[in-house]
Amino acid sequence: MPAMNRCIVLDRRPGPEGVTPACFRLEEAPKPVPGPGELLIRVLWLSCDPAMRGWIAEGPNYSEPVQLGGVMRSFTVGRVEASNHPDYPVGCHVAGRQGWQLWAVSDGSDIDRIVDPALAPLSFNLHLLGMTGLTAYQGLMQMGKPKPGETVAVSTAAGAVGAVVGQVAKILGCRAAGLTGSAGKVADCIELYGYDAALNYRDYPDSEALSAALAETCPDGIDVYYDMTAGWISDAVMPHLNVGARIAVVGTMAIPSSPPPIGPRAHRDLLVKRASMSGFLVLDHFDKLEATVETLAGWYRAGRIRTREDVSEGLESAPAALMKLLQGTNRGKVLVHMPE
Amino acid sequence: MPAMNRCIVLDRRPGPEGVTPACFRLEEAPKPVPGPGELLIRVLWLSCDPAMRGWIAEGPNYSEPVQLGGVMRSFTVGRVEASNHPDYPVGCHVAGRQGWQLWAVSDGSDIDRIVDPALAPLSFNLHLLGMTGLTAYQGLMQMGKPKPGETVAVSTAAGAVGAVVGQVAKILGCRAAGLTGSAGKVADCIELYGYDAALNYRDYPDSEALSAALAETCPDGIDVYYDMTAGWISDAVMPHLNVGARIAVVGTMAIPSSPPPIGPRAHRDLLVKRASMSGFLVLDHFDKLEATVETLAGWYRAGRIRTREDVSEGLESAPAALMKLLQGTNRGKVLVHMPE
Repeated sequence: MPAMNRCIVLDRRPGPEGVTPACFRLEEAPKPVPGPGELLIRVLWLSCDPAMRGWIAEGPNYSEPVQLGGVMRSFTVGRVEASNHPDYPVGCHVAGRQGWQLWAVSDGSDIDRIVDPALAPLSFNLHLLGMTGLTAYQGLMQMGKPKPGETVAVSTAAGAVGAVVGQVAKILGCRAAGLTGSAGKVADCIELYGYDAALNYRDYPDSEALSAALAETCPDGIDVYYDMTAGWISDAVMPHLNVGARIAVVGTMAIPSSPPPIGPRAHRDLLVKRASMSGFLVLDHFDKLEATVETLAGWYRAGRIRTREDVSEGLESAPAALMKLLQGTNRGKVLVHMPE
Repeated sequence: MPAMNRCIVLDRRPGPEGVTPACFRLEEAPKPVPGPGELLIRVLWLSCDPAMRGWIAEGPNYSEPVQLGGVMRSFTVGRVEASNHPDYPVGCHVAGRQGWQLWAVSDGSDIDRIVDPALAPLSFNLHLLGMTGLTAYQGLMQMGKPKPGETVAVSTAAGAVGAVVGQVAKILGCRAAGLTGSAGKVADCIELYGYDAALNYRDYPDSEALSAALAETCPDGIDVYYDMTAGWISDAVMPHLNVGARIAVVGTMAIPSSPPPIGPRAHRDLLVKRASMSGFLVLDHFDKLEATVETLAGWYRAGRIRTREDVSEGLESAPAALMKLLQGTNRGKVLVHMPE
């Protein structure tokens, strides 16, 4: 057990070249000591998420930007090592937002819930049984409102969120069509996650070519589009919307943080198709976490949902793991394991 | 009573310069004779609507384009002059889609309803008590879902639809803010329609300047945006959306029919504000026409809704009346009267 704490802090905000490992630096600090009402957590698992790009950007966002010199914000799972807090006894496991560091002191406000290590592997609380599952399930249900027999298209279909969306769509009796970024991910979509069809958008030079391919992938049009990318990928989807289609805007991976991105205006497509585009932010839906975890855990135990993890070892690997996610070279949910 | 029919037909589709009077030509034809199951209508009032730009464009739209050489599509009010149809006796008045012509034969399929000339002036069935009122009321209620105390912004606020939207918003207990295109229309918004605030977007050189002005017009942000323009006017609205805002996309007056318009992508605004943009097409809501007319007629008779008409005389004036509407030099609902 190290006597010092180690953490990764935000060294500089991304410039025009986007996020790079140089945005971060490793720091050492004394291992923190919990005060009255506080607890000490040994962080065991870190999560890498697309939202991190927004968290470290300068521009306005739905949460406060990470401060320069501050510990990088992250969803985490850890074990309570010392506690002056009645709700969190020593030895229990917690999912929360302890950041990219080995040790964290908490007053409980950055803990989301106590997790049960017997239910599923601890790391699952950072994807299927955590924010990832909540984002996938509630975003699909509330914004997408899928009905049996409808076609659900998913961009970043093999990503941590997308893989759950596609599988839930299938469980609900929909046709699932995946847009993803490599041949390996196309294979995951079909073989691992059970999509009816999937295509690699990197095979197409532009929106028009991708749109032409989508005409074959989605012969009956698209009723629900779970959109994690925006940008040219989503432009290709618009012509295939059916009347009354619903677009869940969940992420914007394919457009830069700044300057404000320019592209085809959506208004006329929305009008002609009487379609809707609705922003979904998981932070608004924490109250549905327990119920969603129960639903997804049930499907997991019944063998109806499969997951894939892309695990890096050690705190130092976190920036590279994030890069892998942002560049799309990951396969499955990107996690960092910090063994003892 | 003329022995011949006269009609205005589509001579050519709009080119890059947009709609011009040269898109239309006047034609004479024998006065039609109703066959079995048909009726003959003397058209008395024609309506000019923003949707006409779409009806005569080549591009895909939500209704079939008007054929070249075909009578210009239009909402109309007329009187039954001869009838072999049991539902429409001679002398009754009907609102329908008889087009820009003096005489029309109908089998009933292009008649929307029988109207009561005692309820309000006949022409009102082409705005407050017709598609205009239905578009305003249902678009606001179903897509905008306004709640008392919220701010409702309306683009083309003094137009036929916008004027009703603003007044309904006020009746529902909202704050109403109008975006409109002339000083005279600003005056109409405030003095005639009761908006809390209004501004003339032509006073501003670009979206940024308009957006800065909106910060003063809507100090509490915007909860509902009833959007008839899209384009640079709507771009100025986006930064003022409150969390959970609803945008009703009802028209796209400020963007060209072709080529596909380019502008700021809406995705990130929708995501950060958890806002929605939904296309509304009045054709989907015909089943609510009677109930809506009843609601709006009640408010009109109670003096709670005011209207303004911009009337041209004679069939020949219809293309110029449409130009007036599309150029925004009208004051109130643009109508063409065809007296006997």
